[in-house]
Amino acid sequence: MRIAVFGGDGFIGWPTCLHLSNAGHDIVIVDNLSRRRIDTELGVQSLTPMDSIQERLRIWKEVTGRTIRFELLDIATDYFRVKRWIELYRPDALIHLAQQRAAPYSMKSDWHKTYTVNNNVSATHNLLNALADLEMDAHFVHMGTMGVYGYSDIGATIPEGYLNVGIPNDDGQVIQKEILYPANPGSVYHMTKCLDQLMFGYYAKNDSLRITDLHQGVVWGTHTEQTRLHDQLVNRFDYDGDYGTVLNRFLIQAAIGHPLTVHGTGGQTRAFIHIQDSVRCIELALKNPPTRGERPKIFNQMTETFRVRDLAKLIAEMSGAEIVNVPNPRNEASENDLRVANDQFLDLGLEPTTLKVGMLEEMVDVARKFAHRIDRSKIPAQSAWTSEIRSQISAGKDIDSFNGEA
Amino acid sequence: MRIAVFGGDGFIGWPTCLHLSNAGHDIVIVDNLSRRRIDTELGVQSLTPMDSIQERLRIWKEVTGRTIRFELLDIATDYFRVKRWIELYRPDALIHLAQQRAAPYSMKSDWHKTYTVNNNVSATHNLLNALADLEMDAHFVHMGTMGVYGYSDIGATIPEGYLNVGIPNDDGQVIQKEILYPANPGSVYHMTKCLDQLMFGYYAKNDSLRITDLHQGVVWGTHTEQTRLHDQLVNRFDYDGDYGTVLNRFLIQAAIGHPLTVHGTGGQTRAFIHIQDSVRCIELALKNPPTRGERPKIFNQMTETFRVRDLAKLIAEMSGAEIVNVPNPRNEASENDLRVANDQFLDLGLEPTTLKVGMLEEMVDVARKFAHRIDRSKIPAQSAWTSEIRSQISAGKDIDSFNGEA
Repeated sequence: MRIAVFGGDGFIGWPTCLHLSNAGHDIVIVDNLSRRRIDTELGVQSLTPMDSIQERLRIWKEVTGRTIRFELLDIATDYFRVKRWIELYRPDALIHLAQQRAAPYSMKSDWHKTYTVNNNVSATHNLLNALADLEMDAHFVHMGTMGVYGYSDIGATIPEGYLNVGIPNDDGQVIQKEILYPANPGSVYHMTKCLDQLMFGYYAKNDSLRITDLHQGVVWGTHTEQTRLHDQLVNRFDYDGDYGTVLNRFLIQAAIGHPLTVHGTGGQTRAFIHIQDSVRCIELALKNPPTRGERPKIFNQMTETFRVRDLAKLIAEMSGAEIVNVPNPRNEASENDLRVANDQFLDLGLEPTTLKVGMLEEMVDVARKFAHRIDRSKIPAQSAWTSEIRSQISAGKDIDSFNGEA
Repeated sequence: MRIAVFGGDGFIGWPTCLHLSNAGHDIVIVDNLSRRRIDTELGVQSLTPMDSIQERLRIWKEVTGRTIRFELLDIATDYFRVKRWIELYRPDALIHLAQQRAAPYSMKSDWHKTYTVNNNVSATHNLLNALADLEMDAHFVHMGTMGVYGYSDIGATIPEGYLNVGIPNDDGQVIQKEILYPANPGSVYHMTKCLDQLMFGYYAKNDSLRITDLHQGVVWGTHTEQTRLHDQLVNRFDYDGDYGTVLNRFLIQAAIGHPLTVHGTGGQTRAFIHIQDSVRCIELALKNPPTRGERPKIFNQMTETFRVRDLAKLIAEMSGAEIVNVPNPRNEASENDLRVANDQFLDLGLEPTTLKVGMLEEMVDVARKFAHRIDRSKIPAQSAWTSEIRSQISAGKDIDSFNGEA
């Protein structure tokens, strides 16, 4: 298959490209390298030393003999160039990962909110618009998030995208309808993924585009089979307060003897998936596209759920790290249940990589290997969801005071 | 009240400003005059001769002694200038009409889709973002559309924004929840108004913004009490295939002896409201804001529903005009029922201006007065929802052939 991977330089994009290239597909990465720009802005860097995209691709060619091409292109700001590129390349499938993907970054300031909304909405719409205008029957696969659902408060398992509801009509009957699961985003970033869903529904309906949306949980881990092939193929590993996802953050903290920072009571239940499973799911989705005229196909791309404090406890026991509760920067319920259906990927043959202690230890080893590269001041979350929360964080215990104690 | 009217130079905005200024409010129009730019692009003009915004405001001052100020500002592209302006002016209420508002225009080409999405999403988000960042407790009133609902196919009245549904939980109980009515937009334009709704829900939840969304039907008529006060205060009257709404288009056609062009079977049922009621509803909404922390308040701003072919018949009988069926440029069901709840405005005292034959005749007189200004070639719809529909329109009867026969 000819596959265009938009955002192929990122945390999910890079191992996805290697995985699909390894499987024999013709891959082009289209990326504006904005994630590297944001590293520069925040003054952070991947824990793992990460080469330029061109160098990474040179190594991939050297190690495997396979070619992945790279196109520097901003799909959010240059519609007509994107369209022209798609028209020339004529992909069989497009994988769309070209969005600002951190909730805390989207909440840093009003500038970051504006950037996230404009970038994410335009990126998605430009791709859909071009496919519709070119009347191209390519499969469009998008990386969504479990965060579009918000959290269920009625003791019901979250289904895969669509919800069966009963609606009373004017004759007193209750009619069963399957509707898009009501959106309940918890940040500006998550909101943009909800906007995406409506655009998908519209373009599938009006232009018969074939669209798959993957509602992914929190990704953990760093290696896949391909990134292990060479030191310079390593995936990025974010540990900062904005881009470091919760489990990776705990692992880093454990590795350097920093207390595990649990936000609030840690009562938030989150869905998780290992990076290796993430790329396998994308491949499974590619192999099982919707048919033309079908509504967007939605998968829940997650394999396990954990309460954050239970994760912290597990890692503390394993590593001897302390746990410290810090104010939660997010405006959310302090405790929540989360049950999620993921039957579709299991039925397609996914064998989940579950969070086992052995695996965590391996991760801690990765973190220890690069511990000298860690800037401790970047670990605490700096973004706050509201000004009130910002004040609470400032007034509370300053986690930076731990920095000298490791 | 200090009220900022974003898009105050437009079809709804102008009479809204006059109505609220007349009621004693301090009004500033904020507009980038894009609607005039689009007139230039399309080579069309308002049937009614329309002066510059500055001249209109000079006349308003002369006739009533009241001052309305004008600020030339593009709220979609210049976030920080918008924010600064809001910070300085400190409005008690913001009325947001600053969006591209024609479904056919949004479907003219891929450029028009991109423009509509980027403009409409950014305009809304920039205002919400600024209010949240400034922690300003102003009432935000937005002009939405009945088109967010799509059409009900289960024989149920469309409620005002929120729908009661029954959701089965994992214990076999059915839990009743009130959810945002599932979006089903029929064009890229309508889609943007669905995106707006999600942004409203988010900013009301996270930042406690007080937001009202008005889901308006098709507006007809041109005069309000204030626009009648002076020839130069007249409202714009669009009759072209993109911006002319169905009833106004029929009236123009009747006035000049052009056949009434019914799209498809004319079986589409639409919701209608007179422009005078539209501005009254906005005033009622301003007087009845949601409280802080409340979800967005949604009103259905319409007073009657009609099937398009019945409207055509009514006007044909009155004026002696012919009716001609032309291909429907829209990708929609050819026949639909539509029942809409509008109790909230009725309870607040709205006395609807219903579509009466006398009123229609008066409108035809307005149209006749300016008939010499009509460019007949601009009357047919030029936008098509899909390339297939575009071909059908091209292959079908050419409505331009009527142009010489009036």
